Amino acid sequence: MIFDYEFRVRYAETDAMRVAHHAAYLVWFEAGRIEFLRALGFDFNELEAAGYGQAVREVRLQYRRSVQFDQRLVLRIALVRASGPRLVFGYRLLDATEREANQETATPVALGLTEMVWVTPAGRPTRLPARHPLAAALAGMERHPDWAEW
Amino acid sequence: MIFDYEFRVRYAETDAMRVAHHAAYLVWFEAGRIEFLRALGFDFNELEAAGYGQAVREVRLQYRRSVQFDQRLVLRIALVRASGPRLVFGYRLLDATEREANQETATPVALGLTEMVWVTPAGRPTRLPARHPLAAALAGMERHPDWAEW
Amino acid sequence: MIFDYEFRVRYAETDAMRVAHHAAYLVWFEAGRIEFLRALGFDFNELEAAGYGQAVREVRLQYRRSVQFDQRLVLRIALVRASGPRLVFGYRLLDATEREANQETATPVALGLTEMVWVTPAGRPTRLPARHPLAAALAGMERHPDWAEW
Amino acid sequence: MIFDYEFRVRYAETDAMRVAHHAAYLVWFEAGRIEFLRALGFDFNELEAAGYGQAVREVRLQYRRSVQFDQRLVLRIALVRASGPRLVFGYRLLDATEREANQETATPVALGLTEMVWVTPAGRPTRLPARHPLAAALAGMERHPDWAEW
Repeated sequence: MIFDYEFRVRYAETDAMRVAHHAAYLVWFEAGRIEFLRALGFDFNELEAAGYGQAVREVRLQYRRSVQFDQRLVLRIALVRASGPRLVFGYRLLDATEREANQETATPVALGLTEMVWVTPAGRPTRLPARHPLAAALAGMERHPDWAEW
Repeated sequence: MIFDYEFRVRYAETDAMRVAHHAAYLVWFEAGRIEFLRALGFDFNELEAAGYGQAVREVRLQYRRSVQFDQRLVLRIALVRASGPRLVFGYRLLDATEREANQETATPVALGLTEMVWVTPAGRPTRLPARHPLAAALAGMERHPDWAEW
Repeated sequence: MIFDYEFRVRYAETDAMRVAHHAAYLVWFEAGRIEFLRALGFDFNELEAAGYGQAVREVRLQYRRSVQFDQRLVLRIALVRASGPRLVFGYRLLDATEREANQETATPVALGLTEMVWVTPAGRPTRLPARHPLAAALAGMERHPDWAEW
Repeated sequence: MIFDYEFRVRYAETDAMRVAHHAAYLVWFEAGRIEFLRALGFDFNELEAAGYGQAVREVRLQYRRSVQFDQRLVLRIALVRASGPRLVFGYRLLDATEREANQETATPVALGLTEMVWVTPAGRPTRLPARHPLAAALAGMERHPDWAEW
């Protein structure tokens, strides 16, 4: 499963170079992950309340073309790895118009990777029990290890 | 007491108009309030831990001249009112170089006002007991009600 | 015309009080204004490119109830005044679920007001010519002066 | 040369997990780079005005321990590589108090790497001419390639 999250670049996310600031991409990735979970039937607030929060341990980002205010983007998210306490997602950020024009050859404006660990409300590493419905969903989900290589 | 907080505009705070985004001013006001409290001998974390957090109830901001990336600014903060659960601060944002050149006539690039209420960790309104050292410090502090009028 | 802009609170917009940070509201207001203009048939980028940018001159915000991560909100935007170089919008922020349950009695979680002026790309005040389609649209739009009073 | 940039975590930079949001680190890295350049005698605005802006091409970040509101941090910045159009910096983020207590053994709370390219105001890749004083300064500066390996 590759999840698509569509959004537009906000004015507050631009900077004096007249493009989106590079830190905004991490905010988009996070918003996309929340929607990814929602699409699977899981509510991030409920997961946190049940003792399964997520802390980001590592991020990698490559910016290939800048994006402008109001540009319509599609963030594609794929599961790279889910093992023990860790959850790794890969990201491909595409211009929405380019993607609609050509599903196959649209090239990403940015690539990303985030590694999360499950944490308790106190911030301690934990694991999602195998019997948890989300653990089951992740276990059955297609992995895209190639999304970690670029 | 009028407290001066000096800082520079960060690149991430600019937008595509090549000036600081208007939401950044609220972040500067907040950072200034923390330093104001520190100058009085109070640590915001300790206040929160003791059950006295602050929630913003109202803000007013007037932007008179835009400010640029890396511009050195002085945020002047004055107590407008401290009564019961409420704490009102006034703000005058000045260009640091202008102010150094002419203490008396430098005109603000922005004016602001924030009204806070004391809240418990659960977000309920509370009051700072009169015996609390900060309550005593605020009670003895000069008020600047004119900083609320513009 | 009252325009409704629906969105969810992002995780990056929350703070250590576990509610949305008060500066985020200005970012939502701005995003809502862009969508308001789009709904009228105007693209903010094209307006700027044609020499009609907008600079915020004043904001007022009242926070009545805090909002949480992932909360679904409806931002209602009304034109308060459009005269010469100035454009004033009023805002009512509502919980989306409350509003759906009861259109009439849902009470805002926040109220706001922003005053913008039209500016050239160099930041100089300008006016939207009366013959400009947006000037015509604004001239014919219902005003809500009461949205400026609270 | 390893440059130290000291600062405190702002309230607006925290999130509902009560720690600094992971995107804030990129804003700190950027602020640190600006001060690094200033310490070398270069003003980022003047560089941009002269046609030498910087665009971020890649970032890597590893978060080892979370940091809290108001925590005093030291961001250490080292040049990893400067060749042709590219400029790579490495980052070690330390707790300021830990570092003061023990210069040698304080362990980073985060590690980072950013790769920038020089760009014209129009966003086209360019090179800093070898005769430019900053090119000379970078050419003579100690490299820390090991700051790219973790």
